[in-house]
Amino acid sequence: MKHLTTQSADFQAELQALLAFETAQDPKIDQIVADICADVQQRGDAAVVEYTNRFDGTSAASMVELTLQQNDLKAAFERLPQDVQVALTTAAARVESYHQHQKMSSWQYTDEDGTLLGQQITPLDRVGIYVPGGKAAYPSSVIMNAMPAHVAGVPEIIMVVPTPKGERNDIVLAAAFVAGVTKVFTIGGAQAVAALAYGTETVPQVDKITGPGNAFVAAAKRRVFGVVGIDMVAGPSEILVIADGSTPPEWVAMDLFSQAEHDEIAQAILIATDAGYLKAVEAAMERLIEEMPRRAIIEASLNNRGAMILAKDLDEACEIANYIAPEHLELSVENAQQWSAKIRHAGAIFMGRYTSESLGDYCAGPNHVLPTSRTARFSSPLGTYDFQKRSSLIQVSEQGAQKLGKIASVLAHGERLTAHARAAELRLAEKE
Amino acid sequence: MKHLTTQSADFQAELQALLAFETAQDPKIDQIVADICADVQQRGDAAVVEYTNRFDGTSAASMVELTLQQNDLKAAFERLPQDVQVALTTAAARVESYHQHQKMSSWQYTDEDGTLLGQQITPLDRVGIYVPGGKAAYPSSVIMNAMPAHVAGVPEIIMVVPTPKGERNDIVLAAAFVAGVTKVFTIGGAQAVAALAYGTETVPQVDKITGPGNAFVAAAKRRVFGVVGIDMVAGPSEILVIADGSTPPEWVAMDLFSQAEHDEIAQAILIATDAGYLKAVEAAMERLIEEMPRRAIIEASLNNRGAMILAKDLDEACEIANYIAPEHLELSVENAQQWSAKIRHAGAIFMGRYTSESLGDYCAGPNHVLPTSRTARFSSPLGTYDFQKRSSLIQVSEQGAQKLGKIASVLAHGERLTAHARAAELRLAEKE
Repeated sequence: MKHLTTQSADFQAELQALLAFETAQDPKIDQIVADICADVQQRGDAAVVEYTNRFDGTSAASMVELTLQQNDLKAAFERLPQDVQVALTTAAARVESYHQHQKMSSWQYTDEDGTLLGQQITPLDRVGIYVPGGKAAYPSSVIMNAMPAHVAGVPEIIMVVPTPKGERNDIVLAAAFVAGVTKVFTIGGAQAVAALAYGTETVPQVDKITGPGNAFVAAAKRRVFGVVGIDMVAGPSEILVIADGSTPPEWVAMDLFSQAEHDEIAQAILIATDAGYLKAVEAAMERLIEEMPRRAIIEASLNNRGAMILAKDLDEACEIANYIAPEHLELSVENAQQWSAKIRHAGAIFMGRYTSESLGDYCAGPNHVLPTSRTARFSSPLGTYDFQKRSSLIQVSEQGAQKLGKIASVLAHGERLTAHARAAELRLAEKE
Repeated sequence: MKHLTTQSADFQAELQALLAFETAQDPKIDQIVADICADVQQRGDAAVVEYTNRFDGTSAASMVELTLQQNDLKAAFERLPQDVQVALTTAAARVESYHQHQKMSSWQYTDEDGTLLGQQITPLDRVGIYVPGGKAAYPSSVIMNAMPAHVAGVPEIIMVVPTPKGERNDIVLAAAFVAGVTKVFTIGGAQAVAALAYGTETVPQVDKITGPGNAFVAAAKRRVFGVVGIDMVAGPSEILVIADGSTPPEWVAMDLFSQAEHDEIAQAILIATDAGYLKAVEAAMERLIEEMPRRAIIEASLNNRGAMILAKDLDEACEIANYIAPEHLELSVENAQQWSAKIRHAGAIFMGRYTSESLGDYCAGPNHVLPTSRTARFSSPLGTYDFQKRSSLIQVSEQGAQKLGKIASVLAHGERLTAHARAAELRLAEKE
């Protein structure tokens, strides 16, 4: 891991270099994805089945074999050991409860002229959830993507998940069951994204697609954006831990590992105000790395992009956090709530020594789909609000039309938009 | 204008053809914009000044000459006639009041184990507002983009507006004054977007860029997305009027004109349940077109993309509206509120005969930046919420860590993420 200190004259430049990450899109991938999307748009199911057989090593004759209904999901749930069933339902219930707090409601008010103004909230009609398949199967992602849509009142939640060589993952399907997914297609890649965006004979066209995927999925989502809504195209996952030394070094070490084990480009950074504590965490990491099955990934991640930063105090540490705008921020400090008020930019803030990021990843309640790569400066966690939308409501009274009409007339003439002005003027009782 | 009836067997295909709009990006424009963005990122102010002099016909020696402070904006306001001053301040006050209702607040709750969960709301640090210059100068756009940021509590609102041949538009600068803009740079095009996204010696780097612009501006916004946030890249403007025949045909005719006068690709559609009323509106249009200065644009727009649709009843009309998901929907009907409850997808709903779209464009209160091209199926008007963001808050209690730790452990092992599991297990009082 790199070692930085804020006392260095080059600190700001070193910090920038640490955070730099090239996200250039690959033109070859873009071309392949463009071809697949066009083909699916044109040939529908036939194209989806062909690509699925080719890329996933399956031998489906038609989309029927790639379709799972709710009773299939229920059966998958029932096949699981009881402790996993309980873990899934408990996590889903907590995520549901938290996301209920995010639900937006319609509102309206009437001004002194009797003009009604407001905002009508409606759920999306139908959404698609992309779930990666194969070994890196994450049931927690199913819950985190589908549950907000379910809470928002989306009537139809369509999930796609590739099943390489036809192998279905019961925990993933069970997660779909507990999270309120309507229907699952066992397809993936750009062909699944295209099927959801354009619709086929079998796959219904959705209004928004969320969920993580590989470079082909990301390119396909970027391509269909506008035809449908998408969530953010995520960058590598990151954690920033700010520690005042009051948390056992082993706990912080393992929290850094839990970020680093995702992949080689994940980023784990620790800021402390005490050089001795940084050394203690490093020593703990040396001991604990031995028992990590994903040791190679963790070491690569920490060597490539990890860092320990010595700051002069917690105020300075919070300012660095605001610059980094991390996806995950652990305030592993005493009086964490007091310090959280100084944080302007972070996807999620984990406060106090007991709040490991992994509790938030699975079951605390908040979403684990969070803004990465400094985008927490301007964006938010995935939430119920992403599956609702707003329509402005305006009902101008006859009296209101007199006052507003004169203002609109002046401003419209100022913009040389005569029809705009005339439309307002026609509603005036005393014509101008 | 095209004439459609829902009784036709081909109606759905005809409607789709009517709405079809090719939004393909121009690779030549993309390349020019890529070069400008790279140059501004590298050379900063020098590049911005050069491009501005070249494209806007100015002869600025440095960015100082292209910078306006708040006293310059105030002076522009004071030069305006009093009726325009009143119109601007009244419109701004109404927009401010409406957008106050949209402001999000932080919340938190504590579960039965003493675990705190919540959401912290913060404004963006600094935003950029792009305002088109030249003849098509829209002070109303300044208010509609800047005011939500101002209400959200954004400390710094940077506006850019090109001034071709150095001509400044007082109404635009005055609108910036009343809408709380911090500073204005008289620059435009891709170079202005790049300056805001990357920052230069003079132009501060912003976190989000909103506002309309030409194809170069749109391409630049798309390019810098991710480095900064952007609002939607808007398509052509649209109106759908649903009329039950109770509104004077002239009023509806002028409302259709007010959309059509924007440009040749704007879309104006009228749905009525009575063929005689459609004829009456058409007759009114024939009379009223004579007095329209932008007659050529209106005629081109109506010929290209306008339509009158005969529906069998208002229920059917509402279903068509939900398919179209129009940017502007006028429910020019009796009991409009009752019908608005049937609308699932629309940017803004204008209810009743007195509510011309133009009142909403300027001064009713709601925003006039609205989702176009059917994107109201999944997106919302520009609002205060676009200049705020959310951070999840989690503080797990010692007791909560026992329950949650066991769940997280089961699920993390299910995902083969051992460090995630261990981080949760380390916090258990009875180690597993």
